[in-house]
Amino acid sequence: MDERVREHADVLVGWSARIEPGDDVVVDVAEGAHELAVAVAERLGDVGANLTVTYGSDEVTRAYLRAHDGEFGAAAGELELFERADAYLRLGGGRNTAATADVGADTRQAYSRARNELREARMDTDWVSTIHPTRSLAQGAGMAYEEYRDFVYDAILRDWEALASEMGQLKELLDGGETVRIVTDREDRPRTDVTMSIAGRTAVNSAASVAYGSHNLPSGEVFTAPTDTHGQVFFDVPMTIHGRRVRDVLLVFEDGEVVDYEAAAGADAIESVLETDAGARRLGELGIGMNRGIDRVTDNILFDEKMGETVHLALGRAYDANLPDGESGNDSAVHVDLITDVSTDSRIEIDGAVVQRNGTFRFEEGFDGGS
Amino acid sequence: MDERVREHADVLVGWSARIEPGDDVVVDVAEGAHELAVAVAERLGDVGANLTVTYGSDEVTRAYLRAHDGEFGAAAGELELFERADAYLRLGGGRNTAATADVGADTRQAYSRARNELREARMDTDWVSTIHPTRSLAQGAGMAYEEYRDFVYDAILRDWEALASEMGQLKELLDGGETVRIVTDREDRPRTDVTMSIAGRTAVNSAASVAYGSHNLPSGEVFTAPTDTHGQVFFDVPMTIHGRRVRDVLLVFEDGEVVDYEAAAGADAIESVLETDAGARRLGELGIGMNRGIDRVTDNILFDEKMGETVHLALGRAYDANLPDGESGNDSAVHVDLITDVSTDSRIEIDGAVVQRNGTFRFEEGFDGGS
Repeated sequence: MDERVREHADVLVGWSARIEPGDDVVVDVAEGAHELAVAVAERLGDVGANLTVTYGSDEVTRAYLRAHDGEFGAAAGELELFERADAYLRLGGGRNTAATADVGADTRQAYSRARNELREARMDTDWVSTIHPTRSLAQGAGMAYEEYRDFVYDAILRDWEALASEMGQLKELLDGGETVRIVTDREDRPRTDVTMSIAGRTAVNSAASVAYGSHNLPSGEVFTAPTDTHGQVFFDVPMTIHGRRVRDVLLVFEDGEVVDYEAAAGADAIESVLETDAGARRLGELGIGMNRGIDRVTDNILFDEKMGETVHLALGRAYDANLPDGESGNDSAVHVDLITDVSTDSRIEIDGAVVQRNGTFRFEEGFDGGS
Repeated sequence: MDERVREHADVLVGWSARIEPGDDVVVDVAEGAHELAVAVAERLGDVGANLTVTYGSDEVTRAYLRAHDGEFGAAAGELELFERADAYLRLGGGRNTAATADVGADTRQAYSRARNELREARMDTDWVSTIHPTRSLAQGAGMAYEEYRDFVYDAILRDWEALASEMGQLKELLDGGETVRIVTDREDRPRTDVTMSIAGRTAVNSAASVAYGSHNLPSGEVFTAPTDTHGQVFFDVPMTIHGRRVRDVLLVFEDGEVVDYEAAAGADAIESVLETDAGARRLGELGIGMNRGIDRVTDNILFDEKMGETVHLALGRAYDANLPDGESGNDSAVHVDLITDVSTDSRIEIDGAVVQRNGTFRFEEGFDGGS
């Protein structure tokens, strides 16, 4: 076994999920994640946790969904399994990222609705989602298998304690601020100049650990929930949204809402997102990527949105963690992230003060404070 | 997909487990049983059952057990999962039959004790255990992969309704009888001549279906719980018992107990079984194999003991299903089957009347009734 698989399991069980002796842990294993499951089981045995292993196979799910008439139930015992679990570790990594491509949207939605209570019970545990690098994911990223493994472990095997403390500095700036402005001015593309309010909102230091309210491994972003967005943003990082390729999206905001949009590819996908409901035209998230172990786009949102020197904005639903107790933020059935590169000719301002220029933060070496 | 995989799933879900719409079904998938899991999920979707899939990986279990200090707990939620399930389908078929060979016996036993309640909850459901033919199992059987698949499907894809009715005739004979005698007299090996009482016992028509109290697929045996065994039995079918090869075992019984034994190989394994406890020296089961789809020994008890024209006797624990309500039969921590070939120079008598000669039953064509 590649020693990095064991290190991945160590980070997942120790840093991310904070598993303790006697914890009841459900581990869900995708078809291609067997090797990581072995390493995670070893680590859980060592900690003295109780282990239940479920099989998260897309091919099994596809077969079940396609054969079913669509009137789905949910097993009472499976709900209990999650309600009584202390932690849920999802080990992704299939053998075909398109394994459920021929399952109809209606069936998918009906199944998802029937399992809503199960999903909520899982989310009430110390859950963490990660992936084992498989050939299928390498292919999806357009990378060779060995190259992709290096990429994944560079993103996952970080000094999380140090990164958490670095990200804490940005969280502090955001928590103390009222307005964020993002400007990117490059000759070869439309200008970004957007302003939003973050008054009263709390930023999440997403340091890949439940101790920080963060449930993804890798993580490495600081995010909050903006309101009253004005201006325009050009998203130069290509994405796949609902199965469609999207490239070079320009969104124009007035009074917090998208009033105009363009895209070099996938304009119909953007249109369908915007038309979901009223909340889909407003932002639910401003996220600032700070994981410099992720140095390229791989069309996998778990990685792309954490990439250092990028900013992402999500149309749709806001996260409760960003809101004052009892307050509900932007509500929507969707949460779609769009990403822009801020590594050059860019700046992020909080209340008029530059906190990042050309990808370098004020608290980092080499920061250029000039206007 | 080989069409026989789908037929296997049909038999398992329909004939064996009798799954109905809305049933909560837990399917446990061994590392090599993915393809069967896909076919079973399709069938369960078609029936409209609720599906929970667990991952029964020997390699994951090994890693967990070797790393653990041995003070095992059991997850409360996993117990609920099984207590609330209507059925439990175990799809065996790993990638290495020796995958847990380096787990210590103490650890194995401690883990098994900690999970006793889970196991009992599973046994209270309509559980069925089957296997998907893998290369590892083919290797264990000493067969080529394609050859082994033919072997497995010949055993599983039978006309179970017809076999159940045929086996019902033997059950009737056993239920009405008081004494069974088995005689095999061949020049090249020690004689078998053993007599046992089956008075008051009920035979199980093990027709690979929960409707018949049968939980193995394949099955195809009729078994009961004998007492007062006298005489000797020569077991000419080789076996693996607790990891040791056993061949040509001769057991001598007096007053229901083994008083002497010999073996051409594995005598120490037999000795260790006999010394487990008092019940290990008495018989818990007399089983008569009736699955003629199984035409060779493959060192897998799920198949070997069901082979047509064989008889097996188990040292140790008796099954409740054979006993009058409230009566407890032979009790022991072990249940070890030994098998003898009755295809030639053999007869089985019930109360002095020959019911099988040279492998052919009284109710079959070609039966030779002469003494």
